[in-house]
Amino acid sequence: MVPVSTLKAGSVGSVETRHVDLPDPVRLDCGRELRSVRVAYETYGTLSPQRDNVILVCHALSGDAHAAGFSAVQPDASTRDGFGAEDRDGAAGGALGWWDGMIGPGKAFDTDRFFVVSTNLLGGCRGTTGPSSIDPATGEPYGPDFPVITVADMVRTERAFLDALGIERLAAVAGGSLGGMQALEWAILYPGQVDSIVVIASTHALHPQGMAWNAIAREAILRDPAWQEGRYYGTGRSPDAGMGVARMVGHITYLSAPALHDKFGRRLQFADDIRYTITEPEFEVENYLRHQADSFVKRFDANTYLTMSRALTYFDLARQYGDGSLTRALESVSARTLLIAFSSDWLYPPAGSQEIHDALRALGSPSELHVIDAPYGHDCFLLEEERQTPIVHGFLARG
Amino acid sequence: MVPVSTLKAGSVGSVETRHVDLPDPVRLDCGRELRSVRVAYETYGTLSPQRDNVILVCHALSGDAHAAGFSAVQPDASTRDGFGAEDRDGAAGGALGWWDGMIGPGKAFDTDRFFVVSTNLLGGCRGTTGPSSIDPATGEPYGPDFPVITVADMVRTERAFLDALGIERLAAVAGGSLGGMQALEWAILYPGQVDSIVVIASTHALHPQGMAWNAIAREAILRDPAWQEGRYYGTGRSPDAGMGVARMVGHITYLSAPALHDKFGRRLQFADDIRYTITEPEFEVENYLRHQADSFVKRFDANTYLTMSRALTYFDLARQYGDGSLTRALESVSARTLLIAFSSDWLYPPAGSQEIHDALRALGSPSELHVIDAPYGHDCFLLEEERQTPIVHGFLARG
Repeated sequence: MVPVSTLKAGSVGSVETRHVDLPDPVRLDCGRELRSVRVAYETYGTLSPQRDNVILVCHALSGDAHAAGFSAVQPDASTRDGFGAEDRDGAAGGALGWWDGMIGPGKAFDTDRFFVVSTNLLGGCRGTTGPSSIDPATGEPYGPDFPVITVADMVRTERAFLDALGIERLAAVAGGSLGGMQALEWAILYPGQVDSIVVIASTHALHPQGMAWNAIAREAILRDPAWQEGRYYGTGRSPDAGMGVARMVGHITYLSAPALHDKFGRRLQFADDIRYTITEPEFEVENYLRHQADSFVKRFDANTYLTMSRALTYFDLARQYGDGSLTRALESVSARTLLIAFSSDWLYPPAGSQEIHDALRALGSPSELHVIDAPYGHDCFLLEEERQTPIVHGFLARG
Repeated sequence: MVPVSTLKAGSVGSVETRHVDLPDPVRLDCGRELRSVRVAYETYGTLSPQRDNVILVCHALSGDAHAAGFSAVQPDASTRDGFGAEDRDGAAGGALGWWDGMIGPGKAFDTDRFFVVSTNLLGGCRGTTGPSSIDPATGEPYGPDFPVITVADMVRTERAFLDALGIERLAAVAGGSLGGMQALEWAILYPGQVDSIVVIASTHALHPQGMAWNAIAREAILRDPAWQEGRYYGTGRSPDAGMGVARMVGHITYLSAPALHDKFGRRLQFADDIRYTITEPEFEVENYLRHQADSFVKRFDANTYLTMSRALTYFDLARQYGDGSLTRALESVSARTLLIAFSSDWLYPPAGSQEIHDALRALGSPSELHVIDAPYGHDCFLLEEERQTPIVHGFLARG
């Protein structure tokens, strides 16, 4: 049931997603508070008696709590983005966690040493309270009444969740993309409680082109009549058409142009010739996009997509904490910082990591930046495990 | 009524779009033929008695026949893409042609010397026969029954149109983007009838990422229920939602990330703070995208968008004429070739022009390549008139 090759590499094995109900409401940046928040989570490894070996792993826009090992209950669910998803989810047995290559015995986040905790984010649709959850005040799904949340709200929820688990300090907070934003936000919001952060393929603020792609993806959903102003639950209709387009836009921004060239080129679906059709895919890349859209809408909630996309677009440390200055925003950071960026990542280009690194160094705060020369674009953070592993391993060993 | 500054620069003045009905059917690559084809066109300058000073200018995906001067009849129509559009269309008087900066007395395409002809492409929605035209066989708009056409079909229509005007030879065929594809196709289909081609911000075959963006734009339209399988004419509904998303995708691919950064940065719509909304624009770039979408759907037909996008995705000289080899495809070219590309154009990157240049040189065919270092992305071909002018001017003078 479990692929042998992965077991050899050091798997955490079969895991189940569990849930915690937070005892107190979560206070949000928008001024509202959320009651009865449930958090879905998984853990890998063993908590030390001193409770000093905890690493919190944070997922990106479309991830979930299932970061490592084999899901015992959802054999068909794919939670991995990018090319890697296809290559791995066909494995026998349950679905592999989205960062399985990085979490396990002897891996970058070594479960022989660390107790790794992964949660589904606030606003999510995979077990943690989000727009598709029941609003206890009405007995109906929140839908568009779910509050507009920020990355800081996600982090406050993670803090409350760890409190519920009896965990005070974190050896590290780690994540890629939106996950890296959470790590940065942790270092600012809870400076005394985080020893180190691992920020991969991320930024202190998305650049305007990235904001535009996110806006277009949201527009595709908002303009789908089946979205029904966000109240589509239980109607028998959901904005799959718009979600599909949103996913296609996202997917292409996660890859590099050379990666698409290498994988598909201009190959036709039917090698003989074009068939003169506008409604059907003619090229392999067109077919691939449809496939990506179709599989995504089966596993993801449109209102959660809107919520996550809005939060990561808002994220801007200089605006939030520095009165426009990134350096000022990072003044309170005491955690050691590891930044990893990828040369071909044009959605979260290395420049963003460089700016964080420069600001931290100017403040005398310990920071390490590695730009990995790799061709797959933003998805590198999910695919380039072999080259990230020694960097992360070494960084954590020095902690 | 006419802006003084533009008159000073040498304007062709007020122009009207005229129409020609082709006497014969147009034979298409798909095997069908189109009867009763009408072509919308404009001309600037004076035809020489020898009829040897004709330049055919070809427009891009969303253009029309109105390439230069002031439209006498459509004061509000904007046919320019990109930032330039906004800056110019507010001028008093009729709308300025989409390449007015390049066509006129003393300009790149100098109407003191040349007789410049511009047509709306086959499949268009601005006067030339396209999906929104009446099918003479049914008395109803073609809609989805309009044939799936190629760039070669557009060029054959242009050839037939020039025949109707009594023009046999062309001093040049010129265009940017899809317009440049037509110029290349002209040089291959009618090698003895074209003295030179001017191919700007174009390619011999769109790269896979560009194919993906086009596919996503088409998906946004196809998935809009108001598209109604293409039969939306006269129903009171049209796929404006999907077209808006298609336009947003296109628009961002026409610009560079640095250009977006310089123009919008992360500026909020309301400078005080975020307002916690998912459905309304929070950032200037988000508002700009909505504005672009809204103005585009007022002037453009969705089925024409699908048709143009499909044709430019099919375009692939090596596949069409070279059995996979670009050099073989270009063997018959006898026209002098001028290629201009822009450093920041990531939709039609300079590499595509370089490949054409290398192939022509290998064949001993005269070719000139200029890569202009400019920051605005693909839209440079509409905006960087000052730097293109001496290049085009010099190239045509040597003819």
